[in-house]
Amino acid sequence: MLKDIALPHIAGLAVYEPGRPIEEVARELRLRPETIIKLASNENPLGPSPKAVTAMRRALATTHLYPDGGGFYLRQGLAKHLGMRPENIVLGNGSNEIIELLFHAFVAPGDPVVYAERSFAVYALCARLFQAQPVVVPAKDHTHDLDAMLAAINGRTKLVFIANPNNPTGTRVPNEALDRFLSRVPARTIVAIDEAYYEFLDDPPQTLRHIQRGMPNLIAMRTFSKIAGLAGLRIGYGVAGAEMTGLLNKVRQPFNVNAIAQAGALAALGDRAHIERTRRLNRQGLKYLGGEFRKMKLEFIPSEANFICVRVGGGAEVFGALQRRGVIVRPMGGYAMPEWVRVTAGTMPENRRFIRELRRLA
Amino acid sequence: MLKDIALPHIAGLAVYEPGRPIEEVARELRLRPETIIKLASNENPLGPSPKAVTAMRRALATTHLYPDGGGFYLRQGLAKHLGMRPENIVLGNGSNEIIELLFHAFVAPGDPVVYAERSFAVYALCARLFQAQPVVVPAKDHTHDLDAMLAAINGRTKLVFIANPNNPTGTRVPNEALDRFLSRVPARTIVAIDEAYYEFLDDPPQTLRHIQRGMPNLIAMRTFSKIAGLAGLRIGYGVAGAEMTGLLNKVRQPFNVNAIAQAGALAALGDRAHIERTRRLNRQGLKYLGGEFRKMKLEFIPSEANFICVRVGGGAEVFGALQRRGVIVRPMGGYAMPEWVRVTAGTMPENRRFIRELRRLA
Repeated sequence: MLKDIALPHIAGLAVYEPGRPIEEVARELRLRPETIIKLASNENPLGPSPKAVTAMRRALATTHLYPDGGGFYLRQGLAKHLGMRPENIVLGNGSNEIIELLFHAFVAPGDPVVYAERSFAVYALCARLFQAQPVVVPAKDHTHDLDAMLAAINGRTKLVFIANPNNPTGTRVPNEALDRFLSRVPARTIVAIDEAYYEFLDDPPQTLRHIQRGMPNLIAMRTFSKIAGLAGLRIGYGVAGAEMTGLLNKVRQPFNVNAIAQAGALAALGDRAHIERTRRLNRQGLKYLGGEFRKMKLEFIPSEANFICVRVGGGAEVFGALQRRGVIVRPMGGYAMPEWVRVTAGTMPENRRFIRELRRLA
Repeated sequence: MLKDIALPHIAGLAVYEPGRPIEEVARELRLRPETIIKLASNENPLGPSPKAVTAMRRALATTHLYPDGGGFYLRQGLAKHLGMRPENIVLGNGSNEIIELLFHAFVAPGDPVVYAERSFAVYALCARLFQAQPVVVPAKDHTHDLDAMLAAINGRTKLVFIANPNNPTGTRVPNEALDRFLSRVPARTIVAIDEAYYEFLDDPPQTLRHIQRGMPNLIAMRTFSKIAGLAGLRIGYGVAGAEMTGLLNKVRQPFNVNAIAQAGALAALGDRAHIERTRRLNRQGLKYLGGEFRKMKLEFIPSEANFICVRVGGGAEVFGALQRRGVIVRPMGGYAMPEWVRVTAGTMPENRRFIRELRRLA
């Protein structure tokens, strides 16, 4: 049996159960695919940045060539965009990969890794994969409890994750609280701030300032999957001091980020119009959804991201019933919130359709 | 210092030095980019499969959606193409990632991992990253010495890599020798056969037969980077028994393969014309290059892949001199072959230009 050859901790890992393609769901439920709306993965309802699509179309002709393993042009573009230097940027096959690189570089079996209850699932996945000791800190009001997280860090803690805004709750930590946390965290603990939804914030924290001022143990992780609408391409990045990016570059594969993604991401950086349209639509969607939840007397968590959690009673049942009506949302049972579903703010017609179907279930 | 926090073996890893974009080389050497030819990375000189380009163009409109994490359609297509079942296929961000997944699943620090001298560099990279004990078996006539590799395997050996055809030498092992090796290898050692250049072989080994017959510890690794011309997309796969693919699926990231790559790869599978054109051109190129090397009285290694190694005297010097003339090849010093360069078989005009410039150096 192969499992006797595999490393002992591998057998215990959950096999990831991928969501089936919309076409498959459609076939099973006898729905036409174009009648199904997916508000389950916090994707950009406006689609990819049109500038990115143009750049990617042009790049298709040279997909026989290996990508630029150093991400030369994209790192230059990001550096200019962020007011950093190219050596402050490390590119990943999605920001998921940056998380994995941090474990490769810093975490030995048994090392404590701190993260919040009800935050991004990949922290826990990687902790198990690398045999870290997960230290899961309870949330307070659906938000990271930074004081409790600081208290959970000891001299052996290698890594702490802060998702801000947090997925799946959509909450944020106050900027002052984050600054205070960063000023107190031990120098021997790597602080990874996951800012996948950063661009949706109206009053974002100045995370990169801490890096510019020379904090070597801080990394901010961002992505082109959300505001830029490039989730299918798998491209994210870390911003950190040059010593940190140097270490992460040692543990990544030479050609980890594909060429089309690099071309699309670079063009998306300059697509202010798409970013602004996305922000505007998202604000409108969250406002509408919150208003409707209030009318329906449903508890919800005010969101700073592009999705919103609502307490519907039986999350799994409501998820199933909505799916049969062609509306895919995310049940929150896996996050110990069995009464909740998470819904992405879609286009306004999508948001209205979701509310209509939800009302029918009541 | 961060390096005191990083795991001790990380500091010793070499930072990967990426090749600079052609545009940068052009600027430095004051050459026009379109006058530079790159015969350094075994890319397809005919470009990507046109059918793949058409499919990828169509897929660009939905890059805001996450890829199908299960690779449903591509695994179905591959299964049909290979005469296997979808559960026999695991997809990777390039076949490089399949190599990394094997280490994640099977290799603990100190475990012996066997591979041949002068074979694909990523085996050694991963062995160091995962703190394996590398057991490097000398080559015989530039070819894997399978008897010596078998003898190097002991009861603790977790993993053995066989690159067939081998990169960078272009040699293959005889089919009978491979069958014999597979019949003798211990059941507790995972055998990874790297078949990145498999489709260039005229008389390929029937590797998948062994899997069909139930050999659980065998995995064949293939790629869309070479014959299909999709190196920029990063997509490769492993073919193995369902128990093996199940383990590897546990250690991969949920969305490791991008959506454009999945669409392009599926279309490329059906592009027989592009595959045949590529094979024909490659045969013609290898024949031409070999003939010219003979005329020039240069030793070369007869190749079964899409590149060829030639002994030019000072490999690094010839590489530098050719690059100044706008022809990029690969020096072999890193493989302890300092007198050699490796050149990809290009289009016939590219091959002739390479020979012309090489003759000028003589």
